[in-house]
Amino acid sequence: MVHVSDLSWPEYAERVARDPVVLVPCGALEQHGPHLPLGTDAILASAVSTGIAEAVGGLVLPALAYGYKSMPKSGGGAHFPGTTNLDGGTVASLVRDLIREQVRHGVRRLCFVVGHYENQWFVTEGIDLAMREVGHTGVRIMRLEYWDFIEPATIERVFPDGYPGAALEHAAVIETSLMLHYQPHHVRLDRLPDHRSADFPPYDMFPPHRHWVPSSGALTSAKAATAEKGRIMAEQFRDSIVAAVRREF
Amino acid sequence: MVHVSDLSWPEYAERVARDPVVLVPCGALEQHGPHLPLGTDAILASAVSTGIAEAVGGLVLPALAYGYKSMPKSGGGAHFPGTTNLDGGTVASLVRDLIREQVRHGVRRLCFVVGHYENQWFVTEGIDLAMREVGHTGVRIMRLEYWDFIEPATIERVFPDGYPGAALEHAAVIETSLMLHYQPHHVRLDRLPDHRSADFPPYDMFPPHRHWVPSSGALTSAKAATAEKGRIMAEQFRDSIVAAVRREF
Amino acid sequence: MVHVSDLSWPEYAERVARDPVVLVPCGALEQHGPHLPLGTDAILASAVSTGIAEAVGGLVLPALAYGYKSMPKSGGGAHFPGTTNLDGGTVASLVRDLIREQVRHGVRRLCFVVGHYENQWFVTEGIDLAMREVGHTGVRIMRLEYWDFIEPATIERVFPDGYPGAALEHAAVIETSLMLHYQPHHVRLDRLPDHRSADFPPYDMFPPHRHWVPSSGALTSAKAATAEKGRIMAEQFRDSIVAAVRREF
Amino acid sequence: MVHVSDLSWPEYAERVARDPVVLVPCGALEQHGPHLPLGTDAILASAVSTGIAEAVGGLVLPALAYGYKSMPKSGGGAHFPGTTNLDGGTVASLVRDLIREQVRHGVRRLCFVVGHYENQWFVTEGIDLAMREVGHTGVRIMRLEYWDFIEPATIERVFPDGYPGAALEHAAVIETSLMLHYQPHHVRLDRLPDHRSADFPPYDMFPPHRHWVPSSGALTSAKAATAEKGRIMAEQFRDSIVAAVRREF
Amino acid sequence: MVHVSDLSWPEYAERVARDPVVLVPCGALEQHGPHLPLGTDAILASAVSTGIAEAVGGLVLPALAYGYKSMPKSGGGAHFPGTTNLDGGTVASLVRDLIREQVRHGVRRLCFVVGHYENQWFVTEGIDLAMREVGHTGVRIMRLEYWDFIEPATIERVFPDGYPGAALEHAAVIETSLMLHYQPHHVRLDRLPDHRSADFPPYDMFPPHRHWVPSSGALTSAKAATAEKGRIMAEQFRDSIVAAVRREF
Amino acid sequence: MVHVSDLSWPEYAERVARDPVVLVPCGALEQHGPHLPLGTDAILASAVSTGIAEAVGGLVLPALAYGYKSMPKSGGGAHFPGTTNLDGGTVASLVRDLIREQVRHGVRRLCFVVGHYENQWFVTEGIDLAMREVGHTGVRIMRLEYWDFIEPATIERVFPDGYPGAALEHAAVIETSLMLHYQPHHVRLDRLPDHRSADFPPYDMFPPHRHWVPSSGALTSAKAATAEKGRIMAEQFRDSIVAAVRREF
Repeated sequence: MVHVSDLSWPEYAERVARDPVVLVPCGALEQHGPHLPLGTDAILASAVSTGIAEAVGGLVLPALAYGYKSMPKSGGGAHFPGTTNLDGGTVASLVRDLIREQVRHGVRRLCFVVGHYENQWFVTEGIDLAMREVGHTGVRIMRLEYWDFIEPATIERVFPDGYPGAALEHAAVIETSLMLHYQPHHVRLDRLPDHRSADFPPYDMFPPHRHWVPSSGALTSAKAATAEKGRIMAEQFRDSIVAAVRREF
Repeated sequence: MVHVSDLSWPEYAERVARDPVVLVPCGALEQHGPHLPLGTDAILASAVSTGIAEAVGGLVLPALAYGYKSMPKSGGGAHFPGTTNLDGGTVASLVRDLIREQVRHGVRRLCFVVGHYENQWFVTEGIDLAMREVGHTGVRIMRLEYWDFIEPATIERVFPDGYPGAALEHAAVIETSLMLHYQPHHVRLDRLPDHRSADFPPYDMFPPHRHWVPSSGALTSAKAATAEKGRIMAEQFRDSIVAAVRREF
Repeated sequence: MVHVSDLSWPEYAERVARDPVVLVPCGALEQHGPHLPLGTDAILASAVSTGIAEAVGGLVLPALAYGYKSMPKSGGGAHFPGTTNLDGGTVASLVRDLIREQVRHGVRRLCFVVGHYENQWFVTEGIDLAMREVGHTGVRIMRLEYWDFIEPATIERVFPDGYPGAALEHAAVIETSLMLHYQPHHVRLDRLPDHRSADFPPYDMFPPHRHWVPSSGALTSAKAATAEKGRIMAEQFRDSIVAAVRREF
Repeated sequence: MVHVSDLSWPEYAERVARDPVVLVPCGALEQHGPHLPLGTDAILASAVSTGIAEAVGGLVLPALAYGYKSMPKSGGGAHFPGTTNLDGGTVASLVRDLIREQVRHGVRRLCFVVGHYENQWFVTEGIDLAMREVGHTGVRIMRLEYWDFIEPATIERVFPDGYPGAALEHAAVIETSLMLHYQPHHVRLDRLPDHRSADFPPYDMFPPHRHWVPSSGALTSAKAATAEKGRIMAEQFRDSIVAAVRREF
Repeated sequence: MVHVSDLSWPEYAERVARDPVVLVPCGALEQHGPHLPLGTDAILASAVSTGIAEAVGGLVLPALAYGYKSMPKSGGGAHFPGTTNLDGGTVASLVRDLIREQVRHGVRRLCFVVGHYENQWFVTEGIDLAMREVGHTGVRIMRLEYWDFIEPATIERVFPDGYPGAALEHAAVIETSLMLHYQPHHVRLDRLPDHRSADFPPYDMFPPHRHWVPSSGALTSAKAATAEKGRIMAEQFRDSIVAAVRREF
Repeated sequence: MVHVSDLSWPEYAERVARDPVVLVPCGALEQHGPHLPLGTDAILASAVSTGIAEAVGGLVLPALAYGYKSMPKSGGGAHFPGTTNLDGGTVASLVRDLIREQVRHGVRRLCFVVGHYENQWFVTEGIDLAMREVGHTGVRIMRLEYWDFIEPATIERVFPDGYPGAALEHAAVIETSLMLHYQPHHVRLDRLPDHRSADFPPYDMFPPHRHWVPSSGALTSAKAATAEKGRIMAEQFRDSIVAAVRREF
């Protein structure tokens, strides 16, 4: 029982009285190639958050199901059908309101688990606006992108032929493997993209160039994804983040 | 397959090409008595939306998991632990952004299914702001609170001793019965509130009077709730809303 | 001398020092059928506020002359010439600013008298934003829609053939009677609408269907309106609201 | 019949069809010395607007009863009881909304008659935001502060001993004389301030120095005010503004 | 060493510990005739600020290089190429943020030196919003338009044939002379406008009339400008403002 | 003559008529260790922009002298004296306004040269908001962080012992070398930080941990910085960005 939406208010009150870490999965509704669902980021951020909450006796708030605008070089961009972008101000307001309210209920330890790269700066802005507003309550907030916790040993096992870096890992080996681990029924294995990596120049254009982005929407091949790799990463991410959470809170 | 978050982008594109009605469940994270979970409004709005989408070949976007501020006379108010309120501007921005983006993808028929009474005016404001922005695209939008579709025959069956009116039906017979029908494992039958109805004066006070609201958080007794009543309402709501959707779109 | 705009600053200061209830009439510029002026909501909210202020030694601030967007099912909607709608954010900002400033001057008891149904949620939002901002000043605020104070005995006298409910009472018997009582020269008796009641479905459409709304702009017949009924309601509303104000403040 | 709030919607529609100039008096709730009411700016802007509307067949919208923040050197400042300041964004939003809506109804000629010095830049901002939004509708808007129309011949008659300039004319000879002309019952002749002019340095301080402002709230003596001077100015202002309106529209 | 942007953080810290006056030049990117650069207002406000800082041991923050919308009667208006206007809300937010941050670092004496007439009200709004936010920190803020410090003796020397008033002094004798004094290489003496003064009516029109404004962009002749007059004004402005700063802080 | 602020309006008009690329340096006022000035980011972004403009016949707008909030892991964070942070909404509004205005003047090719890492997402948001607003004008916008153009050959020459990555290059070898190249008088060589690199965990904390950041404010040693390395990078950055600009525009 870690999901706040599943608790009645007396149950929530009892839990908050024990000063739990409250996790907020920050997802998106964004194209993830022909083989992964539009909700991938929210699904994975929620799964990661749940694992952490279970380990540390924390709680998980409902995920932000929509996120900041998808960019070509990290998420494929707005032109893919289904990618549903929020304005930066909307994301920041949402985060600020959630913090204000949780702090009002007595929560003093929050952790935003970002599952959509483009969210991070607007989640940060929302946190900063909230910190300014709630003042001297002693609340402390962690914000993380879960993939940043990947460790060298994991990289070696998941990317035996070399890690292309997080930048291209949209709808690719990490996310596909994690989905195969957490929600395999949501992965269309027959549609796994297997093409060359996107090769982006060191700048952005507006309006974006569609031809920069592989037509599949994945930024590199997802062919090497497996459920086992997903399990390896899921466990390592959980362990590493749990260690960080314990260290900080 | 009606949930957009479960579709890949090519699947979404194919569906949108058929000009579906896209439903947006508008929930909240709000106390619902000692027997129902905080996520009740999002759960029920999603369940109702799913039923409609299945009947009309529509799609369902991820629910708004947070809503406008809970008021004492309709939702018990902010003082109940867990009730997590958004500012009006945040709700309106969220709705406006969703519409802008769906319209950009070619959606021309949207239906906001409100499951949290306090949401309705800020969802309306978001719709109005979006309509102004998207201009002459021909998009048409329906907004409804599902309980408003209750029909006399249903009232007779669900409330044989008289219908107290929708106003007090927070965490009471309608919502509890629907939860017993849709998600019975989420109902704590042993904690069903059974007290006299709240008796509110015809005005609001700020800061609110906590003593106006029963300490359970339910505004009237939920004791008469049954899964069967839930089924009756769920089916009638679905049929009536489906008829309305077909008439309008 | 209850109108703040008629007082000099030393007079206002002297009055505020006695800790008065300060009333804020919240009107609109909105069609009210062919027989009532566009300013009806502001006129009636001001008249009701004045009566209360006189009874309790209160003050009345200048009315909000413009209000939130008129909706077809409660006010006929935006398509009637003259209906001049404010955005929700504008209404909320206006209310928040007024409260902030009155609190700064020492006012601790405020009452927003809403005369335009659509205003209520954005007035509420403005109050909530102000309460958050002014903090621990001890200010208390009441918000009411005056027609909600109608009592059974009054209903019997004003609606001997049955009360259709407040929902359709736009530019109908209540408002027309009150105008005949307060400002009879503003009522065009020769243009009193006398048609069947509007019959609205339980949802809203955007853009709105104009054909849902009677072409007169009134939502039901106003033919039964009389000055005497206006007097009966005006007195009962005043007495009931005064009692509520005294009870609360 | 020039006041929009007094017209029914069919009357307004008929008038707007003739392409009238629609005037918007922009007032304030602000101290005006011990002898003039807090609502002076709205009263005078409305009176001036009414005179113009009658002369040119125009219409007058309800006055903005609240305005931008009173400044020490032009209005005495915020510390006087009763002065009720709006944020700049609120004033601009209000003006933008009013224009958007009037343009929607077919109005193409608007005139904002500012009666409160501090309003002018935020009214200007609201106009600019609206012009950007309404685009190529052909609407044209005039904005004026009525006292800027004073002519040398009038100055000679009203200020035989020399015109101190508009800067100090807050609650002084111009406004007091105009009130004696338009609404003499609102002037407390026994409390007419008669002190030396304020002598302001060429800068502003925040928080403001209260000692800069005469304790009466008037910035210079109002002793020389007479109803006759009020009449002279009222007539000249009307004639000059009417001429400008005719020239422009 | 008065420019904050040239200091390292330890140098800034050391300086702020001595409680300096921190000056903020508020300029614009706006046409200034055919002979002066678009950056004139920022250049002059910076030069004036630097002189003051040197005299009082103060600091100068980087200038606001963009300002509020240029108006025809004070700056020629938006239609001149290069005039780059900010919305009022942007200017106010910028000013509010700067104050919030400087106060956070320990600054308690700020002075906004406005070099662009149209800035003043939005700088004022930003200051007011910041004062509300920073609360009881004891910070005090001055805001000035430097030309308002011109003294009769200077007027006699600079305008031997009579001072047309600050209103028309856009890109005219004052600004051109000051530029000849401070940055002579930026003045195109061969393009000095020498035409009759603009003759504006006492109102504004939107969209603005371009024909009201001389085609040069200067509002009156700049022919009488000299570096010597610039020196006279620069020194007198500096002395007078320094005296005011010393008196206030 | 590439700086817009130095041009008169006819000169700007003539230049814009040739369809130039208009560059906008996006800096900050942020600590850069004990050896570099607070204005480093604006200085470098301006210098880079100037080089590009000279090469492609472009124009450079005045730099944004203030930027988004400094973060511990990329800029040391807010606790260093002098770091003057803007809210995200302020940065985005500023960028949106600049684009709207430049587009209005006929500019169709813009390039935002970001010199402050934290700016990039809010500059992006401002660009996106502007693109939505200006619609079908054909304007195209590039956004870049100049250090991302560093090429392997340059890395080998500047970092013979290995490139620690851009992440830690705050006030370190890249920025210090570039300052030694462009503005050597602004570098305090005697205060060059020479300590171990910061070692950040893969998450952020709010409020930030000050002990994560070296007390100098630099994130790694700047000792290896030389003017020659600055020249090498300056030339390569210019050449690479010029090539990109030519390719895109």
